[in-house]
Amino acid sequence: MQLSPSLTALIEALRCLPGIGPKSAQRIAFHLLERDRDGGTQLGGCLTKAMQVIGHCESCRTFSESAQCDICQSVKRQDSRLLCIVESPTDVLAIEQTGQYQGLYFVLMGHLSPIDGIGPKEIGLDLLEQKLSQGNIDEVILATNPTVEGEATAHFIGELCHKYQVEASRIAHGMPVGGELDLVDGMTLMHAFSGRRSLGS
Amino acid sequence: MQLSPSLTALIEALRCLPGIGPKSAQRIAFHLLERDRDGGTQLGGCLTKAMQVIGHCESCRTFSESAQCDICQSVKRQDSRLLCIVESPTDVLAIEQTGQYQGLYFVLMGHLSPIDGIGPKEIGLDLLEQKLSQGNIDEVILATNPTVEGEATAHFIGELCHKYQVEASRIAHGMPVGGELDLVDGMTLMHAFSGRRSLGS
Ligand SMILES: [Zn+2]
Ligand SMILES: [Zn+2]
Repeated sequence: MQLSPSLTALIEALRCLPGIGPKSAQRIAFHLLERDRDGGTQLGGCLTKAMQVIGHCESCRTFSESAQCDICQSVKRQDSRLLCIVESPTDVLAIEQTGQYQGLYFVLMGHLSPIDGIGPKEIGLDLLEQKLSQGNIDEVILATNPTVEGEATAHFIGELCHKYQVEASRIAHGMPVGGELDLVDGMTLMHAFSGRRSLGS
Repeated sequence: MQLSPSLTALIEALRCLPGIGPKSAQRIAFHLLERDRDGGTQLGGCLTKAMQVIGHCESCRTFSESAQCDICQSVKRQDSRLLCIVESPTDVLAIEQTGQYQGLYFVLMGHLSPIDGIGPKEIGLDLLEQKLSQGNIDEVILATNPTVEGEATAHFIGELCHKYQVEASRIAHGMPVGGELDLVDGMTLMHAFSGRRSLGS
């Protein structure tokens, strides 16, 4: 027995979702057809539209439907003269959700990875260099991931900041708040020790 | 910070997928935008089309893009004079995958559930009764789920078959092949005992 062509195509297409195998794809397709056709139609339209209209902010490279994102357009953010460098738009979201940072961002959309052919240009460092040369930024906060590639990328951008005499800082690594010492990996523990601060003053 | 409107709408729409909470929806949306826009566009089109063109077979009620599904159109299946009653199109799929059954199906798209307002008409029993009255079926195989509702539905349809003098049988319940006795629930074990067969002959 063959499933109808549109159903077969839908099950196949659902496989593009991360973590969805053939069995789950089938289950989702039948669920939508049996119980939530309105939801399925809605999702179809939203997907088509999002993939079409969402591009990248020409200033910080994060996802945006307009030429510049809301954050880049904010005068208050521009006046902060702070630029936080992250690997992905989800990092921007995570930082914004803390409500503590009020500066600008620059989103690399990845990290340096020479063996994958991802060099400075691929992560927008030409655009970043242009930004640094304009003299509107006092401090660059390097918030790439604490991985080998993230550290290498932070180091490379640190050199770039040095060239334009812009101060660069790296976010602190250490024990997650509420974490237990014996459950944390060795690298984190090492960072927690080397980054220790005096309790005095 | 606000996400762009189309991105917010996409994350919201992804929630219609079973088992997808707000965090997973966000992760999926960013994954598609960052790494698989073609897949996302493809899925959008497939969803829109499937929800539009997939209806129900007018003869057996399973999902179909044409008035009658392939199985109902098969002369070989019609000649079997067997009609298997299941609750859902996925049950048809499961039975077809065994390759052992060569008869027709009738898909209830649910089961009797008076407290939810699901009576005989809602699960297509008027259409089934019409089928039984035409004299083209020799045996009805009741393959609804072994749940309280499934059993009640099977019983109700059994009475209908009796009225039209069509033989009705219920699929056997018992130990799953390869199952371990002490891991099986009591109801299944009870069915396994009451449905025991003599080893002789
Ligand atoms: Zn921006
Ligand atoms: Zn059919």
